[in-house]
Amino acid sequence: MVDISRGSALGISGASELFQLLRDGVPRTRASLAQATGLARSTIAARVDELMRLGLVTPVADAASTGGRPPSQFALNPGARLVLAADLGASHATIALTDLAGTVLARHGEPMDIADGPEAVLGWMVDAGRELVDGLGRDRHDLVAIGIGVPGPVEHSTGRPVNPPIMPGWDRFDVPGWVQQHLEVPVLVDNDVNIMALGERAQAWPAVEHLVFVKVATGIGSGVISGGLLQRGAQGIAGDIGHVQVARGAGVPCHCGNRGCLEALASGPAIARALREQGVAANSGSDVIDLVKRGDLDAIQAVRQAGRDIGEVLTACVSLVNPSVIAIGGSMARAGEHLIAGVREVVYTRSMPLATEHLAIVQSAAAADAAVLGASMLAIHHALSPEGIDQLAAR
Amino acid sequence: MVDISRGSALGISGASELFQLLRDGVPRTRASLAQATGLARSTIAARVDELMRLGLVTPVADAASTGGRPPSQFALNPGARLVLAADLGASHATIALTDLAGTVLARHGEPMDIADGPEAVLGWMVDAGRELVDGLGRDRHDLVAIGIGVPGPVEHSTGRPVNPPIMPGWDRFDVPGWVQQHLEVPVLVDNDVNIMALGERAQAWPAVEHLVFVKVATGIGSGVISGGLLQRGAQGIAGDIGHVQVARGAGVPCHCGNRGCLEALASGPAIARALREQGVAANSGSDVIDLVKRGDLDAIQAVRQAGRDIGEVLTACVSLVNPSVIAIGGSMARAGEHLIAGVREVVYTRSMPLATEHLAIVQSAAAADAAVLGASMLAIHHALSPEGIDQLAAR
Repeated sequence: MVDISRGSALGISGASELFQLLRDGVPRTRASLAQATGLARSTIAARVDELMRLGLVTPVADAASTGGRPPSQFALNPGARLVLAADLGASHATIALTDLAGTVLARHGEPMDIADGPEAVLGWMVDAGRELVDGLGRDRHDLVAIGIGVPGPVEHSTGRPVNPPIMPGWDRFDVPGWVQQHLEVPVLVDNDVNIMALGERAQAWPAVEHLVFVKVATGIGSGVISGGLLQRGAQGIAGDIGHVQVARGAGVPCHCGNRGCLEALASGPAIARALREQGVAANSGSDVIDLVKRGDLDAIQAVRQAGRDIGEVLTACVSLVNPSVIAIGGSMARAGEHLIAGVREVVYTRSMPLATEHLAIVQSAAAADAAVLGASMLAIHHALSPEGIDQLAAR
Repeated sequence: MVDISRGSALGISGASELFQLLRDGVPRTRASLAQATGLARSTIAARVDELMRLGLVTPVADAASTGGRPPSQFALNPGARLVLAADLGASHATIALTDLAGTVLARHGEPMDIADGPEAVLGWMVDAGRELVDGLGRDRHDLVAIGIGVPGPVEHSTGRPVNPPIMPGWDRFDVPGWVQQHLEVPVLVDNDVNIMALGERAQAWPAVEHLVFVKVATGIGSGVISGGLLQRGAQGIAGDIGHVQVARGAGVPCHCGNRGCLEALASGPAIARALREQGVAANSGSDVIDLVKRGDLDAIQAVRQAGRDIGEVLTACVSLVNPSVIAIGGSMARAGEHLIAGVREVVYTRSMPLATEHLAIVQSAAAADAAVLGASMLAIHHALSPEGIDQLAAR
């Protein structure tokens, strides 16, 4: 009995189930919905009315002018509701409001120290989110979900960060519970690199089922989409490739306590350190990017070598995941083709031909927007799911 | 319009949709089915009748004796139908008949050269399969699907092997099309290591969502289950880790044309070769196993080192996939704890604590049965899907 009542596709109103057919945006008639579901016309009418009441479905314009009869075609109405997307970085936060198609309607970013702790950072997010809604002249009840990316591992089922190394005070903090005291909508939380993978796919590769997004910045991590779904793994840390050992790194100490980790050789700070050891003035990844853009040969060579180190780890990734796209993002991707060239050099040399025949290794198209777009996708995906629709109907 | 007619959950009869609720084996009443689906009692009755006609659903015994009224509870009837499972190896083939719960009812194995080509091998499989059905005294129409594992990459959507290195004559061969000329049921084909992952999970870890199965034999490969689903990747070669480079292997030539591949260092033949270079008489992986079982120290050390090499690649796997179980199978796993100890040594040394905190690295429990069990799972999974039920109803 428990099994039956649990299924969200079997929600109380049934409207959520019907909505899944309308979610793709294609206009449909009552008759086609009845045929597809086997439901009675009267049931269809009641469920369509419920979806229209929720603002999720709207009559299609050219069918609405047939006189006194009810409109004959309906489709998803992406503009009727909003989601709040938040990219909470180590030292900067960006929030955006998007519609249900992921189109950004308003955004705001400012410096923000994640180490200020969850209540300060999330409090800012709640206030700034409300201001964005008000600024658009929209009703706060139009907000249907919130997606949040944070720079650390997250237990996806509960939305709690787990042992995040650079987020003091956030360990096991109930992010959804806290936010919902102020904004009573579903709150989805995930690792920043995971949501960047979602954002990159939405922006540039909507039809791709197997995509790996690699973030190269102060740290190195990846988000893995396999079979069309983001893969989080048993502890929510799938894709955490920064501490895989690379051949060149044998003795190099890493902040994790091990030696030879990818992050200790190919992150922005690691490249800067290697350049300093050669006598080049570079204190940060940002300095490295500036040097590369000025054509500094040492910096270009160091970035290319970092690309090769990343490629070494991605060779294992290509064998394991067999993606059709690897997108390289994060601040160090601004070094452009030099980084990607190093990645390609190793991956195409070291992988089996069948795995690389149709493999694109590219710079992130979503770039700095990847995380906020992905946070929006995370929220929309939930809001439009059977569970999300049921939650909305119950409000 | 196209979208609506395509969805298999929206099958013609609707019985397939209803069946998904009964698939777990829990007995249910007409009333609970009506409540769960929102369908009319008359529709429920017709669909239950259809599922009983197909033999997939049966009245539950203690409810069948309520006099003249129709029985009030129904459940999946796993014994009513059969699937044929085939493990076609390089030099040996095993087939089995199982019920819809994966219980083996009859089996047969014999030496078989995959290089004899698809028509010879599949012809044998068809004949031997029919004999098993007849031997059980069952009707050939009881067979509802066939699952086949082959030792090479497979395009899963079509069931065609793609550039399989040790399967001459099989490249792009339409395995399902050929088999269906003789046995008119759905035919599912997959790589042997993929189905071993399915078999291992079914046998020992049914509740585990993230499992990696590693086959160590003449070659080395893995099957990756993430989020509860087998991940095949863009070309169906996800998990193909045999040609990832390992640090120790810098100069060692591999049959793939590259150097330093895992398979060139840690496969059965590679271990035997390394032992020969030390003056130990070992011509094959099987000889190595015999030496280990006799306590030969050189062989034990060589197997442990192979485990370390495999562990090096699995460290990347642990970071990318974040599994909760790694099961080591294939013929070399018969070396027992010596191989696993090497794997554990490196994975637990090199991985992040959060990734290994709840990670079990174990010897395959399904062992020699992993492939045939997995082929059965592949067939059952399809047969009980909405699409499979619709196909059965249309026969």
